[in-house]
Amino acid sequence: MTNVAILGFGVVGGGVAKLLTDNKNEVTALGGDEINVKYILDLRDFPDSEFADRVIHDFSVIENDEEVDTVIEVMGGSHPAYEYTVRSLSRGKNVITSNKEVVANFGDEFLALAKENGVSYRFEAAVGGGIPALSPIISCVKQNKLSEIRGILNGTTNYILTKMFSYGDNFENALSDAQSKGYAERNPDADVLGTDACRKIAILTALATGKLPETDTIPTEGITGIRPEDVSAAEKIGCKIKLLGRCVISEDGEIAVSVAPTLIPSDKLLASVSGVFNAIEVVGDPIGEVMFYGPGAGAGSTASAVVGDLMQIMCSGINTAAPVFEKCRQTSDFSKVLKAQYYIAAKNACAKCAEAAFGKIAEIDAPLETAFVTPYLTDAELSESVKKLTESGASIISKIRIL
Amino acid sequence: MTNVAILGFGVVGGGVAKLLTDNKNEVTALGGDEINVKYILDLRDFPDSEFADRVIHDFSVIENDEEVDTVIEVMGGSHPAYEYTVRSLSRGKNVITSNKEVVANFGDEFLALAKENGVSYRFEAAVGGGIPALSPIISCVKQNKLSEIRGILNGTTNYILTKMFSYGDNFENALSDAQSKGYAERNPDADVLGTDACRKIAILTALATGKLPETDTIPTEGITGIRPEDVSAAEKIGCKIKLLGRCVISEDGEIAVSVAPTLIPSDKLLASVSGVFNAIEVVGDPIGEVMFYGPGAGAGSTASAVVGDLMQIMCSGINTAAPVFEKCRQTSDFSKVLKAQYYIAAKNACAKCAEAAFGKIAEIDAPLETAFVTPYLTDAELSESVKKLTESGASIISKIRIL
Repeated sequence: MTNVAILGFGVVGGGVAKLLTDNKNEVTALGGDEINVKYILDLRDFPDSEFADRVIHDFSVIENDEEVDTVIEVMGGSHPAYEYTVRSLSRGKNVITSNKEVVANFGDEFLALAKENGVSYRFEAAVGGGIPALSPIISCVKQNKLSEIRGILNGTTNYILTKMFSYGDNFENALSDAQSKGYAERNPDADVLGTDACRKIAILTALATGKLPETDTIPTEGITGIRPEDVSAAEKIGCKIKLLGRCVISEDGEIAVSVAPTLIPSDKLLASVSGVFNAIEVVGDPIGEVMFYGPGAGAGSTASAVVGDLMQIMCSGINTAAPVFEKCRQTSDFSKVLKAQYYIAAKNACAKCAEAAFGKIAEIDAPLETAFVTPYLTDAELSESVKKLTESGASIISKIRIL
Repeated sequence: MTNVAILGFGVVGGGVAKLLTDNKNEVTALGGDEINVKYILDLRDFPDSEFADRVIHDFSVIENDEEVDTVIEVMGGSHPAYEYTVRSLSRGKNVITSNKEVVANFGDEFLALAKENGVSYRFEAAVGGGIPALSPIISCVKQNKLSEIRGILNGTTNYILTKMFSYGDNFENALSDAQSKGYAERNPDADVLGTDACRKIAILTALATGKLPETDTIPTEGITGIRPEDVSAAEKIGCKIKLLGRCVISEDGEIAVSVAPTLIPSDKLLASVSGVFNAIEVVGDPIGEVMFYGPGAGAGSTASAVVGDLMQIMCSGINTAAPVFEKCRQTSDFSKVLKAQYYIAAKNACAKCAEAAFGKIAEIDAPLETAFVTPYLTDAELSESVKKLTESGASIISKIRIL
């Protein structure tokens, strides 16, 4: 009998308890042992739940129960998730989480503490919901020279952008629709401003490079500024707009991490990832590009990833290949030499003055503004060109990188 | 120092040796030990290769060298791959392969023998080339009630079908083009008749269910009969045609396995998998649908999967969760109750006689023939309806299942 405790009986916690009950046969066969949800920690009581008798309010009961092998932290937020994780690991309990905030902020510390105590800290569900992505990134691709990990990491923003592309909605209407369907929170800032995607690309960066960038150092731009005019211009050049988290790795191992709306050519499969789905793409030599795709959120899907971690702990014992993270401030020198093309839209501009500022451009037909694609530019060259164009009397409305 | 022997110095064997050399730093760090390619077994000599001094012609040298930990079998074909695998495992050596034929035919025996000898038998590269798919299927999704595993498992046929869709080519021209680009062999039968996809879906079935169906029991249809008229009809109803391997699993665990051209609605991401790429999709409860995508062949990509297996052996030791296969003749009762819609094209038919034979149909506008979509039918109902239509004087030209 393997005893587990679930911290937080919300959507994910409920999903985990349900999976362990509904799929008891699969889980017992796979893990090689019966799993018992001994405790569920929550502030609330759940008198009508079939798990009512496991609900407790005092974490120290779990901490002090030597029968509890594994703690499943699905509370969200940094505190008290941080404290409970430290206390669990210190007492020799494995910890599994779906909480990207706490992994992005303290994953380095937790992994070191787990190692010290001979237990596992796992977080497959923290990125891409149910998609098995972290586990194959840890186990299957690192023999390659990785040059990029990128992804559509937030289902809410991808749903909004898909609506804007399919129905010509503006951002506000698409957001309202997402809220009415339960895909966006009443306060949608963490999604639409890119905060959620930023945490996830920080975690992916750490898996790829061992360096966990502090999230406040990652240039992060949300989708609130995307206009129907941008959607229309993107379509004219055969692209979709996606909120993309990217970690680009130089040959010397320097990294440049960012979150920003990005134009993706439609012939890339990533451009076809629609609605609330997520996708994570790994680029390396000699593997080429591989992609992991699926539902990025939801009780069942996230629970699948959490229980998958539990199965791996039960089957493999302590993985000697567990990742090691080291906190870092993002390097900036490398990002200065990275070049990209940009889509630019401006008022009071003309093709000729755009060309004077940017060099050879490809104009996009736009009825009410001047829109064009720039040559390949570094960040510095882009700023310089934008400045030139602005000085000629134009005002920039949109500026979106092309993948 | 970990000593390995490579059996077969063709495209994949060369790719493996190159990866171990080019990415020596990555591989040593990841595996925790330096890897030495001690032997390369081939019938030929390679005097100009940097590995010339490792090339040998006698397998017993490898078999009897206790320093060889792991044998990498990338020869292809059933024999002598079978014998070398048995002899390696029996002498306590791990075996890694990219050889789908030998896995589909003897995987059950090899896995049992590996277990008996306390070593690993791994074959990530046998399905989907470099895509990490088997490993996550083994480790990350089996806590779900799986209802289907399906995939675009053959890059050659997917390239041909993509050409037919993009350029209106007929099958023969698209095949010639694939041959001229090196994507298809001079004798393309194993690809275009579905044999290769059949082996791969047999392996995926075994991973999902533990039952390895004998390939001669799997209904297998290739793409040689696909006409430009079918492509055009598919487009009219918003579908692509893909050669799909499918393993459908009933709630009772019965399985129905098949390989056949299949119409896939364009709003499914699987329909957008183009060119020589492969994709494997897993459907389960509560995970939903997840997909693994990437290059399905090629020296570098396949080598990445082979070396990934080596890394996992070196990091994790013997995986207690290694799959167990049991050979089986395919069950047929379940496939008799499975229902699907079909696209049918017929000569000398009319909408009215089609409806008399099939029930309510949706006609597709086709200039030179009668084309339509049937209601949901079992195999038996389909045969019955086809018989009725034929008896009315019509002749069936195309009959393709819709996903």
